[in-house]
Amino acid sequence: MKFSSPDIAVHKPIPEPLESEYPVKAWGVEKFGENFKPLTIYRYQVGEYDVKFQIKFCGICHSDVHNVLNEMSTKYGSTYPIVPGHELVGTVVEVGDKVTRVKVGENVGVGCIRDSCLLCDVCDRGEECYCVRGFTHTYNTPKKKEHCHIGGNPEVQNWGGYSEFDVIHEHFIIKIPDDMPLEKAGPILCAGITMWSPLNHWGATDTTKKLNIGIVGIGGLGTMGIKLASALGHRVVAISSSDKKRELARSKGAAGYVVSNDPASVAEESGKLDLILNTVSAHHSLTPYITLLKTDGTLVNMGCIAAPMEYNQFSLLLKRASIAGSLIGGIPATQEVIDFCHKNEVYPDVELVGVGDLERVYTELQENNSGAVRYVLDIKSFEESE
Amino acid sequence: MKFSSPDIAVHKPIPEPLESEYPVKAWGVEKFGENFKPLTIYRYQVGEYDVKFQIKFCGICHSDVHNVLNEMSTKYGSTYPIVPGHELVGTVVEVGDKVTRVKVGENVGVGCIRDSCLLCDVCDRGEECYCVRGFTHTYNTPKKKEHCHIGGNPEVQNWGGYSEFDVIHEHFIIKIPDDMPLEKAGPILCAGITMWSPLNHWGATDTTKKLNIGIVGIGGLGTMGIKLASALGHRVVAISSSDKKRELARSKGAAGYVVSNDPASVAEESGKLDLILNTVSAHHSLTPYITLLKTDGTLVNMGCIAAPMEYNQFSLLLKRASIAGSLIGGIPATQEVIDFCHKNEVYPDVELVGVGDLERVYTELQENNSGAVRYVLDIKSFEESE
Repeated sequence: MKFSSPDIAVHKPIPEPLESEYPVKAWGVEKFGENFKPLTIYRYQVGEYDVKFQIKFCGICHSDVHNVLNEMSTKYGSTYPIVPGHELVGTVVEVGDKVTRVKVGENVGVGCIRDSCLLCDVCDRGEECYCVRGFTHTYNTPKKKEHCHIGGNPEVQNWGGYSEFDVIHEHFIIKIPDDMPLEKAGPILCAGITMWSPLNHWGATDTTKKLNIGIVGIGGLGTMGIKLASALGHRVVAISSSDKKRELARSKGAAGYVVSNDPASVAEESGKLDLILNTVSAHHSLTPYITLLKTDGTLVNMGCIAAPMEYNQFSLLLKRASIAGSLIGGIPATQEVIDFCHKNEVYPDVELVGVGDLERVYTELQENNSGAVRYVLDIKSFEESE
Repeated sequence: MKFSSPDIAVHKPIPEPLESEYPVKAWGVEKFGENFKPLTIYRYQVGEYDVKFQIKFCGICHSDVHNVLNEMSTKYGSTYPIVPGHELVGTVVEVGDKVTRVKVGENVGVGCIRDSCLLCDVCDRGEECYCVRGFTHTYNTPKKKEHCHIGGNPEVQNWGGYSEFDVIHEHFIIKIPDDMPLEKAGPILCAGITMWSPLNHWGATDTTKKLNIGIVGIGGLGTMGIKLASALGHRVVAISSSDKKRELARSKGAAGYVVSNDPASVAEESGKLDLILNTVSAHHSLTPYITLLKTDGTLVNMGCIAAPMEYNQFSLLLKRASIAGSLIGGIPATQEVIDFCHKNEVYPDVELVGVGDLERVYTELQENNSGAVRYVLDIKSFEESE
C-alpha cells in the first residue's frame, strides 16, 4: 500500500473511553504508512433514537483506498487511526425507546451518510448528502457539534464498518429485506445509490419512458449502472476508452458499446443519448460524451476530480445540453435502490475477502480500479485471524 | 468598422434574378472591408405557405456586428454581399393560398430562424433552433436544399432584415399584437427569446414558483433578462464583474446585486440561487456563479465562446449542480415571449437609428457591448437617405 502526502496526515490517537462507551473490535490503520491491524475502538450506548447492529459484511469501496492511503485531497489529510468502510450490513441487536423503523433481529445497512443536520430544506426533501450544512461521512470525519445525531465522545473521529458493531441514529438506517443476500447488499449502499440517484433525478426511474442511457467507465460503478438502467427498461450504451470491456459490458446488459477514443465509434451513437452517467475519476476529455448527447441531454459526472475540467460551450449551446455532478444519494433513494435491487434481483458482482487480504486488495485497487467485481470484507474473518 | 480574418471571407456576388424574382431595396456590405451602402437584392414570389411583409424596423443585434465584420468564427467566414438583421418587424402585404396564421394588414415579426427541417422530433416539439438537421439562420447562410421552405434561387445566400420586404414560410412568422409598439418588438425576437427560452425550460415561467434567479452581464440581454424574470415574480440578482452596473440593474428590477470579482459580495448570496442566466460572451471564470447556486441549481450560459471553458467538478458534485447551454428559442416560445411582453408591458430599451448611423453604431458595439440600449434600424431612413 502506497501512502500519499505525509505532511498533511493528521494523527489523533484513540483516547480513553468515556464511562458510557464500550470496546468494539475493528480493523484499521493506526498510523500513516502502516499496514492494517486489529484496533479497539469505542462505540456509544444506544440513545432513544439509535440502532445498534452487528456488522456481518462491509464492502470495500475505492474511496476507502483513497481515505486510508491519504489520497482524498492535497489539502486535507486523513486522520489516523482510521477504520474505513461505508457499505455496512448486519443485524439489529438493540434499539432505543423511540425507534420505530426497525426491530431487533432485522437486517439493516448503513451507507456513506452517518449524520446530517435534518433541519434544512434539502434534508427535508430526503437529499441528506446535499445538506446545506454538509453531511457527516460514515468515517474519517469529525462530528459536527452544532447538529449532532452521533453520541459518544464528541472529540473522536467517526469509525467505519471494518468493525464488529455500529450504532447510528435510525434516520440513517437502511432496511435490508430478510431474503436479500446480505453479502451483496453492502455495495448497493454506495455503488448502487451512486448510480441510482442520478437515474432517479434525471427521470430514468419513470419506467413509462424508454431512454437511451450511456454509462462511461465499465468498472464496479459502471457495471452496476448498466444493470440498474437495463433493469429499468432502458437501452444502455457502455462507453469506454478502448474495446477491452465490450464483452463484459454486453454480459451485464449493455445493448450498445462506444469506444470514446474512436471517432467512427462515437459517430455511430452521435446525438442519440438522453443521459450519460460518467464514472471516470481521472482527468479526461468530455468532448466525445457531449457529441453522444441528444438535444436536452445531460452528462452527469460522478468522479471526484480535482484538476479543472474543460468543455466546449458552443457544443452545449447547440443542443441545450447540460453537464452536471452527482454525489451518492439521500436516505429515501438509498432505500429505494435496495428495494428495487431486491425485487428485480439486481446485484453487484462481489468477492468475499478476509482481513488477511486487505493489503493485497488495497494495492490492487490503487493500481487498477477497472475491475467490475466489488470486494466485500467478511467480518467473520476477524475471529479466524486470531 | 474593423473587419477580421480576410482569408476566410467568402465572396458570392448577387446573380441576375430568376424570372420569378423581383428587386427589393436593402442596406448591406457588398464586399469584405467596405462600408454599408444600398444594395438591390431579390426576393421570391409568395408560395402557397408564404407570407410577404413590409419591414418597418429591424433591431441591430451584437451578432450582426460579428457577422458583418467576419468575426463569427475563425474557420467559416461570412459571405459577401451581406445584408444583416434578424429582428424584423413589419406588416403583412401578401399571403399564399394556404396560409392560415396571418392576414394582410397584420403586424408580424421574424427572428433568427428562417427555416428548419420541420420533420424531426425536435422541430415537432417546437424547438426549431435545435433541429437535428440544423436550423437555417435568417441571413448569411446557404439554403439547405434537402429540406427547404425557402423559395427563389437556391444558390443565393439568405438576406436579413435591413431591407424593405421579406418573404418567409408562415411557420416561422411571429404575430405581433396590433397595439404593441412596433419599434420595441424586434429585439424581443432575439434578446427577449434568448432569455425567455431558458427561463421557460428551467421552470421559471411556472409562476406558482418563486425562484431566486441570477442574471450575469448587465447589457442588452441581461437587462431584458432582469425585466422578464422580475415580471414573472421572481427575486432577481444581477451579477457583474464590477460595481458599475448596480444602479442600472436596480432600475430594471433587480432586487440583489453581486460583484463576481469580490468574494465578500459573492458570499452574501452564496448557495441562494436556483437558476443563473449568464450572458457573457467573452472567456471568463464560472467559479463564482457555481458558488452562488443552490443544491440542484443550474448555470445556463448563452455566450458563444470558442475557447474551452473550465469548471471544478467537485463543486458541481457537492450540490448536484448543472452547467448548461442555451441558444435563442423555438417558434412557439418566441410567440409566448411576445405575448407575455405585450400583456405585461415588458419592453427592451431601444434607440431608433437610421442607415446613416450604421457605421457609428457598429463601431460602438464592436468596441463596447455593455450598453443596455438596443439599437433599432428604422427602415423609413432608406428613403430619407436618398
